[in-house]
Amino acid sequence: MKIAIDAMGGDHAPASNVEGAIIAAQTWSDIDIILVGDAAQIEPLVTVKLGNLHIHHCTEVIGPEDEPVKAVRRKKDASMVVAGRLVREGQADAMISAGNTGALMTTGLLIVGRMEGIERPALAPMLPTMDEVGVLALDLGANMDAKPEHLVQYAIMASVYRSKVHGMNNPRVGLLNVGTEAMKGNELTKATYPLLEEAPIKFVGNVESRDVLERNCDVLVCDGFVGNILLKTLEGTAGSLLSVLKREFTKNVFTKLAAAIMMPGLKGLKKTMDYKEHGGAPLLGLNGLVIKAHGSSDANAVKNAVRQARVAIQNQLIQTISAEISRK
Amino acid sequence: MKIAIDAMGGDHAPASNVEGAIIAAQTWSDIDIILVGDAAQIEPLVTVKLGNLHIHHCTEVIGPEDEPVKAVRRKKDASMVVAGRLVREGQADAMISAGNTGALMTTGLLIVGRMEGIERPALAPMLPTMDEVGVLALDLGANMDAKPEHLVQYAIMASVYRSKVHGMNNPRVGLLNVGTEAMKGNELTKATYPLLEEAPIKFVGNVESRDVLERNCDVLVCDGFVGNILLKTLEGTAGSLLSVLKREFTKNVFTKLAAAIMMPGLKGLKKTMDYKEHGGAPLLGLNGLVIKAHGSSDANAVKNAVRQARVAIQNQLIQTISAEISRK
Repeated sequence: MKIAIDAMGGDHAPASNVEGAIIAAQTWSDIDIILVGDAAQIEPLVTVKLGNLHIHHCTEVIGPEDEPVKAVRRKKDASMVVAGRLVREGQADAMISAGNTGALMTTGLLIVGRMEGIERPALAPMLPTMDEVGVLALDLGANMDAKPEHLVQYAIMASVYRSKVHGMNNPRVGLLNVGTEAMKGNELTKATYPLLEEAPIKFVGNVESRDVLERNCDVLVCDGFVGNILLKTLEGTAGSLLSVLKREFTKNVFTKLAAAIMMPGLKGLKKTMDYKEHGGAPLLGLNGLVIKAHGSSDANAVKNAVRQARVAIQNQLIQTISAEISRK
Repeated sequence: MKIAIDAMGGDHAPASNVEGAIIAAQTWSDIDIILVGDAAQIEPLVTVKLGNLHIHHCTEVIGPEDEPVKAVRRKKDASMVVAGRLVREGQADAMISAGNTGALMTTGLLIVGRMEGIERPALAPMLPTMDEVGVLALDLGANMDAKPEHLVQYAIMASVYRSKVHGMNNPRVGLLNVGTEAMKGNELTKATYPLLEEAPIKFVGNVESRDVLERNCDVLVCDGFVGNILLKTLEGTAGSLLSVLKREFTKNVFTKLAAAIMMPGLKGLKKTMDYKEHGGAPLLGLNGLVIKAHGSSDANAVKNAVRQARVAIQNQLIQTISAEISRK
């Protein structure tokens, strides 16, 4: 199987992408990795000769400040766009990028292409949970507004993902809402609830955001606007609390002693709350596998994204989603 | 001025309400407090004789499990409904209740009545911020869906509230959104943005939920669904983190020592994150002042809600909101 990596995307590009690709190519001999980007920058970083690590040269780069649609349309030789084209043309089974999120979603839509039967592809990162298993949440930003039928498709796609990639039997699907009773919510959730009850998934009803961290479901569906608010509130609250904690721990010599005692536990807590630990976020509903790695990905995060893509390809994620969607 | 308290509402009713009323009546001689509820239960709790503390007997109670609209319509002699009627008839300038939130919003709408020119009254609690000043956020659950014009009215009402009740000059109004750029968001926020730019308020643009804790605005507007998700995510994340912290601190004798050292700082942190500390939430857009005290309010919280009502009445909150809305 072949996995294309946008070598030029992300805060630490191309070094982290190249390093991660090398480790992945060394770890799994059954995959071929294609580093897409400027060969002049990539080649000096490839310190070992590996038969399954290739460079696909291209000249352009989409940066974090680029306007997504315009950039994807105009920069036809950008590393992200070329990686998308490799997937569309069957020269790669998956692509991974740590670059501009909006541009990657646009690349998915315009270059890789929508899966037949899917109206809106969705971005599905893992939200952190206290038990460290995580909840696959979608949509987290690909489409701001959604219709009830979109949420149903999100639920089906994410259920297949958790089953195929995480080996989870009958993942529990929750509808993000303001209360657990069936008739709670806004117009969207009220109209979606009965549709989810009839969908070929394990629907466990409405789920409140305050319970997400306790993992009361395995898949959480919501529109992209609400999902984004949820994710950023989680991040913001955890970040603020941890920074106050840090301030309290560095107040004087006694609190510094306390900090030393508590360090292992606090490190674990910080790790638990860091959703970057959970690997890349798949963009579901496309004619191929596209994985968004976090912008700040290091080599290890890139390697983990390759692992994720490899498992998804081995277990025929895209084909299964397509079959489920057309069956519906 | 006269303030009606729903003596039978809340987790610790009627004791906490009566005790809070006594303290408030003793503290402020310029107010008359009317305890609305079952005299047989209230009278034994009134341990001191005060000229400005009165009991208004009624026989029914709306409980936490009651269906709001049905309960308000049928239980015409319920303490909450009677308190609302006192406000409507001008026998009280304000009412405070720690009871069923949905029923209180219904009481506001059906008994106290909507202010002329207001389409949707909104519930406006303070969200905690790290600097402990807080952000007045609305709507947090009175109406799940909202139109752009509703959000503009929320912004105007809340600006008046922060100015009149908190003495804040030119409170900064933010629109809860997924990014700070003007064109970000869903259909609702995109349509609302230009209207807020023209409204008679200090609009500071879009605000991301992760920055709310850092108080990047003084008033935060959003629809009731999104507001509820925001509030419950804040609560849930803070609660989960603090509980993990507690577990880590009680692991062994060394961590318990660390806990003892850190106790004052952690207590402060817990207090910072507790939005109940910020007093009751006004229900804005009614023909009178209605304050929702937290269900778990103790006597001190009830006293604080009375203080809040007193300041609002002194500074003609309702009259000013009405003038601003009709001026628009």
